[in-house]
Amino acid sequence: MKVAIMLYNGITALDAIGPYEVFAGVKGNEVKFVAKDKGLIKLDSKMGYLHADFSFSEVTSADILVVPGCCPPNYKSLMNDEDTLNWIRKIHKTTKWTTSVCTGSLILSAAGLLKGLKATSHWSSLDLLQSLGAIPTDERVVRQGKIVTAAGVSSGIDMALQLVAWESGEEMSKSIQLLMEYDPMPPFDTGSLKKAPASMVEQLRAMLQKLENKEPEL
Amino acid sequence: MKVAIMLYNGITALDAIGPYEVFAGVKGNEVKFVAKDKGLIKLDSKMGYLHADFSFSEVTSADILVVPGCCPPNYKSLMNDEDTLNWIRKIHKTTKWTTSVCTGSLILSAAGLLKGLKATSHWSSLDLLQSLGAIPTDERVVRQGKIVTAAGVSSGIDMALQLVAWESGEEMSKSIQLLMEYDPMPPFDTGSLKKAPASMVEQLRAMLQKLENKEPEL
Repeated sequence: MKVAIMLYNGITALDAIGPYEVFAGVKGNEVKFVAKDKGLIKLDSKMGYLHADFSFSEVTSADILVVPGCCPPNYKSLMNDEDTLNWIRKIHKTTKWTTSVCTGSLILSAAGLLKGLKATSHWSSLDLLQSLGAIPTDERVVRQGKIVTAAGVSSGIDMALQLVAWESGEEMSKSIQLLMEYDPMPPFDTGSLKKAPASMVEQLRAMLQKLENKEPEL
Repeated sequence: MKVAIMLYNGITALDAIGPYEVFAGVKGNEVKFVAKDKGLIKLDSKMGYLHADFSFSEVTSADILVVPGCCPPNYKSLMNDEDTLNWIRKIHKTTKWTTSVCTGSLILSAAGLLKGLKATSHWSSLDLLQSLGAIPTDERVVRQGKIVTAAGVSSGIDMALQLVAWESGEEMSKSIQLLMEYDPMPPFDTGSLKKAPASMVEQLRAMLQKLENKEPEL
């Protein structure tokens, strides 16, 4: 399978590298990091880079497309960039699976791919996702036909393992899970809206809303 | 806190990016990607790059050192590279926490830091870890004084969240977990030696042993 992972300045690194690590583990898969312009890609933290080895013009099809997310307000630039949206639409026509992680689903929405479909996003972006015409759910991985959206940041790992199971079978998915020693044991159990204390949710929501109201810098 | 994440050609991307994403989430943390020579860093899959923004000579201390792992036989090059081992020893003298993910513990061992200490590594490298003088355990995150080793690949996320809890308090760790929406739901439960079918473990062990017997290319 040819896997194209879209990168852009302001991206959240784990949104891209989680699925990358899973898909790169499937023997025979070819994974490409693709951006509008190839070269170094600034992370949202401004403390490092990923690297796009291919430009949009060099990648015209993919079996699996991954659109990672980012912190607010970085996705706004992408949602208004016709080159990006057109590339996503073009690749989507060729895919067997079109996927997003975190606020990547906002970018898929802006490209018109989620209209009337169930989808998910980072927990703080579900209202915005709805305003763009998708039907938000609180599942961690949401499949609608060939479109698979995942919740925030780390959920891309679960999404990719699920997709490998659908595409290449359970044995392959289980083997990759074992190779990655993905037997998660976070020290706490506060990783979702349902599990975190309400006060923490509200505090982080306010912090993210402040960011959302800023102009994108990247 | 100043966090230094060591990179090198042949690295496993998620070993570095898992802890990066957690540590970058702590307000005020400064995370640096550091390698012997700065610039692009080839991934073990040979299908992409990370980027070292700093060379060893530019980073002379850190509060937290992270030594990520890689597939066999890539770590052999590092375990025999005196520049790398000397840099690790030098930084270790300045750290509050010295950590490894996956086979990064083999590199810490080669630097002489794990002699007689309990430690962990990727499940397939525990025998090798023992032969280097450490005492392997089957815990996912092992703390011995200021040295914290984590099991394979994905365990770096759990290690970093645990370390943030020790260093910056439970509230901070929980907030980062929620921001990353780290509420793991892998489709299967085969992520450790204890949980995977024995036949799968043996098959992957044989595959990894074959790689181990090769000469490092990077």
